[in-house]
Amino acid sequence: MPYVSIRVAGTLTREQKAQIASEVTETIHRVANKPKENIMIMIDELSRENIAKEGKLLDGK
Amino acid sequence: MPYVSIRVAGTLTREQKAQIASEVTETIHRVANKPKENIMIMIDELSRENIAKEGKLLDGK
Amino acid sequence: MPYVSIRVAGTLTREQKAQIASEVTETIHRVANKPKENIMIMIDELSRENIAKEGKLLDGK
Amino acid sequence: MPYVSIRVAGTLTREQKAQIASEVTETIHRVANKPKENIMIMIDELSRENIAKEGKLLDGK
Amino acid sequence: MPYVSIRVAGTLTREQKAQIASEVTETIHRVANKPKENIMIMIDELSRENIAKEGKLLDGK
Amino acid sequence: MPYVSIRVAGTLTREQKAQIASEVTETIHRVANKPKENIMIMIDELSRENIAKEGKLLDGK
Repeated sequence: MPYVSIRVAGTLTREQKAQIASEVTETIHRVANKPKENIMIMIDELSRENIAKEGKLLDGK
Repeated sequence: MPYVSIRVAGTLTREQKAQIASEVTETIHRVANKPKENIMIMIDELSRENIAKEGKLLDGK
Repeated sequence: MPYVSIRVAGTLTREQKAQIASEVTETIHRVANKPKENIMIMIDELSRENIAKEGKLLDGK
Repeated sequence: MPYVSIRVAGTLTREQKAQIASEVTETIHRVANKPKENIMIMIDELSRENIAKEGKLLDGK
Repeated sequence: MPYVSIRVAGTLTREQKAQIASEVTETIHRVANKPKENIMIMIDELSRENIAKEGKLLDGK
Repeated sequence: MPYVSIRVAGTLTREQKAQIASEVTETIHRVANKPKENIMIMIDELSRENIAKEGKLLDGK
């Protein structure tokens, strides 16, 4: 029953999300021996104004 | 101080959210003996394009 | 594909976890029309030293 | 590599987010001896309709 | 600044964790054009008593 | 009703946790105008074997 949460700054295209979901599922299935049908992935696309690194928001203002 | 995060594909009506919040709070209060006023619930409604099961996005394209 | 994360202070018995899982799944299934087999619940039991309310750790020291 | 997730009801201004990110990073750096460049903060602003306390949604309807 | 949280039932060997971390980082880097040094992955290994599917705990008792 | 999740590699002393909880609560209260009694903080201390940066586990083996 693996659950994967992926959180990125900015947006991804549908194609990027599909590709990431497919590959990450494949990796966990193959490496950890988890059935694919039990792997759930959720992707959050956050505004750069809502993420900070080193104490500074990523929108670079 | 229970914290509950509920993440679903697609949207819920306000009524559905209110009912879920009420019932889940009641369950945790009754079963785990936690005071209701300390139970916090957050609901995330994700686009089906942002959730994958079995390696495929839920929007079914 | 609902995913539910429940985080509590202290420990729960297996019976409490089973009861909460059963009831929360039932609620989401009935209220939000989600198939039960797609509902995943994860429970985290945190030490009271690792949770704070009002700026104070719950272990009350 | 600290990761901090902050979830609030309603919206924050960019200034509030920048100030929170700066201060929280500073706190973790100083108190826990973590290099600032490794501290990542993500802020979620949820609708009051999607948060419940004591079993009631925060939008107060 | 992608953040990835992976939650599984049961334990993984160090080798499995290292392989998953390496491949998932590679996927996100290649597909989403994110610098590898900004990708953080956290893995939670939960007891089967703390995960439920279809309303039943995974420990199968 | 702010909820804050702080996840770090390795362990913190009780004193460090208390200080972080106190300061982060103070910051959110002052900057975002949230009542202190509504601010909940949860701290997860992860093994360095369970966190990766740049595709490599932090335990440095």
